[in-house]
Amino acid sequence: MTARDFRGINPATGDALEPPYPVTDAATLEATVQSAASAADAYARTSGARRAEFLTAAAANLEALGEDIVARAMLETALPEARLRGELARTSNQLRLFAHVAQEGSWVEARLDRPDAARMPPKPDLRSMRVPLGPVVVFGASNFPLAFSVAGGDTTSALAAGCPVIVKAHPAHPGTSELAARAISEAARTSGLPEGVFGIVYDDGYGAGLTLTRHPLVQAVAFTGSRAGGLALLQAAQARPVPIPVYAEMSSVNPVVFTVAGLAQGGDALATALAASISGSGGQLCTQPGLLFVPEGETGDAFLQATATQLDQTPACTLLTRGINTAFNQGTVRLRVHPGVTAITAVPSTDTGAQAQLYSVPARDFTPDLEAEVFGPVSLAVRYDDIGEVATLVRGLEGQLTATLHADPEELSRLGDLLAALQNRAGRVLFGGFPTGVEVGHAVVHGGPFPATSIGSGTSVGTHAITRFTRLLAYQNFPDAALPPALQAANPLNLLRRVDGDWSREPV
Amino acid sequence: MTARDFRGINPATGDALEPPYPVTDAATLEATVQSAASAADAYARTSGARRAEFLTAAAANLEALGEDIVARAMLETALPEARLRGELARTSNQLRLFAHVAQEGSWVEARLDRPDAARMPPKPDLRSMRVPLGPVVVFGASNFPLAFSVAGGDTTSALAAGCPVIVKAHPAHPGTSELAARAISEAARTSGLPEGVFGIVYDDGYGAGLTLTRHPLVQAVAFTGSRAGGLALLQAAQARPVPIPVYAEMSSVNPVVFTVAGLAQGGDALATALAASISGSGGQLCTQPGLLFVPEGETGDAFLQATATQLDQTPACTLLTRGINTAFNQGTVRLRVHPGVTAITAVPSTDTGAQAQLYSVPARDFTPDLEAEVFGPVSLAVRYDDIGEVATLVRGLEGQLTATLHADPEELSRLGDLLAALQNRAGRVLFGGFPTGVEVGHAVVHGGPFPATSIGSGTSVGTHAITRFTRLLAYQNFPDAALPPALQAANPLNLLRRVDGDWSREPV
Repeated sequence: MTARDFRGINPATGDALEPPYPVTDAATLEATVQSAASAADAYARTSGARRAEFLTAAAANLEALGEDIVARAMLETALPEARLRGELARTSNQLRLFAHVAQEGSWVEARLDRPDAARMPPKPDLRSMRVPLGPVVVFGASNFPLAFSVAGGDTTSALAAGCPVIVKAHPAHPGTSELAARAISEAARTSGLPEGVFGIVYDDGYGAGLTLTRHPLVQAVAFTGSRAGGLALLQAAQARPVPIPVYAEMSSVNPVVFTVAGLAQGGDALATALAASISGSGGQLCTQPGLLFVPEGETGDAFLQATATQLDQTPACTLLTRGINTAFNQGTVRLRVHPGVTAITAVPSTDTGAQAQLYSVPARDFTPDLEAEVFGPVSLAVRYDDIGEVATLVRGLEGQLTATLHADPEELSRLGDLLAALQNRAGRVLFGGFPTGVEVGHAVVHGGPFPATSIGSGTSVGTHAITRFTRLLAYQNFPDAALPPALQAANPLNLLRRVDGDWSREPV
Repeated sequence: MTARDFRGINPATGDALEPPYPVTDAATLEATVQSAASAADAYARTSGARRAEFLTAAAANLEALGEDIVARAMLETALPEARLRGELARTSNQLRLFAHVAQEGSWVEARLDRPDAARMPPKPDLRSMRVPLGPVVVFGASNFPLAFSVAGGDTTSALAAGCPVIVKAHPAHPGTSELAARAISEAARTSGLPEGVFGIVYDDGYGAGLTLTRHPLVQAVAFTGSRAGGLALLQAAQARPVPIPVYAEMSSVNPVVFTVAGLAQGGDALATALAASISGSGGQLCTQPGLLFVPEGETGDAFLQATATQLDQTPACTLLTRGINTAFNQGTVRLRVHPGVTAITAVPSTDTGAQAQLYSVPARDFTPDLEAEVFGPVSLAVRYDDIGEVATLVRGLEGQLTATLHADPEELSRLGDLLAALQNRAGRVLFGGFPTGVEVGHAVVHGGPFPATSIGSGTSVGTHAITRFTRLLAYQNFPDAALPPALQAANPLNLLRRVDGDWSREPV
């Protein structure tokens, strides 16, 4: 295998950026996996306090890189400085949030069922908790060079769970990736953790990612990207002699339903807010509202016209990569020529700049192919006659990350069927507002029924994300000293545990 | 499609049992799924108290069938009366345990992150909980005609979660299945639940099960049985346009490691207990100890000889089906002719009775094919020279439901590598004792790395099993009245919730 280099591309100019990054060769890749596997047992045994120290150090290192990493990410992604500064803060805050989760420790869901020797048959002493799976492969995402790439949510939650992480850097931002990787590796070193706790590989093709996904020592994969990419990894993981979970976040058009009363309540500000949600970050957000349900008639017409005017006034933006720009242009052309679809915005895109666009289609002409995500600043409004038909349309949609309803609270009692449909199709339902801007916290769910995500039961954002990289393990009649601290009789970590089913911090 | 009947077979006599059971025809099967799907939303909205009432009624109905169902199960399975009485008690207790779980309600993992309008950008009001997936298909298991079939753990946990259940009855015990189904259907009726909450289909072939697994309205599958069966369902579920989870419990040989000191501690009682664990229920238990690691030398020899003597004195037993009996005979023949393998027990099996058997093989002759489960009363002892080599052998094993260590607690500090290997390969690790006899409680884990189970992160026994049939759903800025009670501000269910990450029962 001959060594090969690739460079990041400045999407604004098309210029190749220095320095070149070597595609990770097979031997280095193998050594990276072996190193992660060697570190797995020792890292699984580290205390939550130790992992918290590590993640906190990584957050500090990342912030210390502030100017450099923002500048490099701007070059590689064409995302605006303010957005990237915000993303950097989100990323380091995310590391600190998971440091808190690791330190606090109750994510292991400790349970103790006390023995009863007198019962026939004797009841054993059973204790269970979540334990880490082992080495996890994380794929960097094109649209979040910081918050969902090298040091992003997948990496952070896997590290907090006690899993070594190997990142496959996204080829569109190798320089940003290298800087973030340095922040984590350095934190691992200063925290005295084994080297294999974190590794990174580079490839501008599919080879390294597939090799990692198929590697017998890899225990789970996390991916954010295209549906084709996610499905390819899913297939590779399922074809293994020992299949592993692939947490792929793939595509979503995030339906937003407006009732007549909802439009009336929203007033002029609603169109401005919708236009911002459609076009913010060049529309390159997994929660971008790509599908709207808007009533036929004057109120709906005026609302869409106001939104289109805002979008026409929004400057064209440079998308993340040339490939994304091409796909956006193809997707919007498909809309323009689709039977029944009308353009509401007036300004066309150019080869290098994506202009935000809005289309509409009568509900009777809405066909399943119109549900396909067009990644970028575009949205399609489905015009309906009667709100009663929207529930059926929503139930016919694929699984979504989010679903939003703009209505008058007073009319909710009459919209039970629609509310049920929205809850059925999404991982997060919103009343009012727009789905972009995902809050990183404890209650957020960023996941949803297939194909929004490949495993629709969980979340890739927020503290619940940690459970993806764990499994339950029970200990029966174990000597106390051989148990993990979370399960020891004295409860040395002061966890809230379920003891015979009841919540308790007491020793047993 | 012509109507077709099948009958249960008395495995002790080979006689077909009356009455005949019609294979469920395509139209009835479709109607059953449609009925379950129609019931899904209404059932998902029922309170925990309502589901508890339903499950408690089902438990009472099942107990009221006591004599009849035990007698029928004896005819169809040849399992002894005492075992089936115990299993019936376990099954109704399991229904009551999940009634308690549903009523108590904290399984939904309610989380509330409070809003902050002053923050920039404003922080939304986010609340999340687990919600049911929708219709679940449960396959009855041959070896637990009550506790893991129609009214067993999978059905009970899915119903407690709020999912309608369609059972594919195991063809070896249609009569037992029909009685148990009647108990549940009757309970649904008296609890005023929609008819589709529970359904059952019959087939002595694979058609109905595959049709159900492929049906677009089915959202999850639970299966306990052979590896071939589980993998076929997994493949069918993954090939769907919208894949669904298959929780298949497939095979496990449940390694038990004895150190020299562990054997010394156990004394004479140890061989008796091991023999009982190998041969109890005809060895037809998923946690049957099929693989032993025993030290070379006199102590190990004596222990195995004592165990073999016990097994030779254990009467031959009738296995569950003729097919299982044939597979057992083939599997034990494969052991007898395998290079390096020696029989320790003396008494051979017959065509109709399975005699418990014990074999041994030196560690150096232990090959991966010897790891295959032989379902029935047989175990293979791997003789090792040095306990240090056992960790490596254990790490080379496939995933297991359980792994057991018999050692002196004093030596555990020197056995760190072995302990880590056992924890790595299993969902439940035992110190002393034997893995058969799975306790149904809060802390138990009956699951394990592939291929012990297809999704190795959870459990099919105990209260944690409920989460398999759920997904996370978040509500953003929802009016309080439109939220499920578990997430309402006043906390009307008095749940322990995470509010901004902290545990609390307070209103917000």
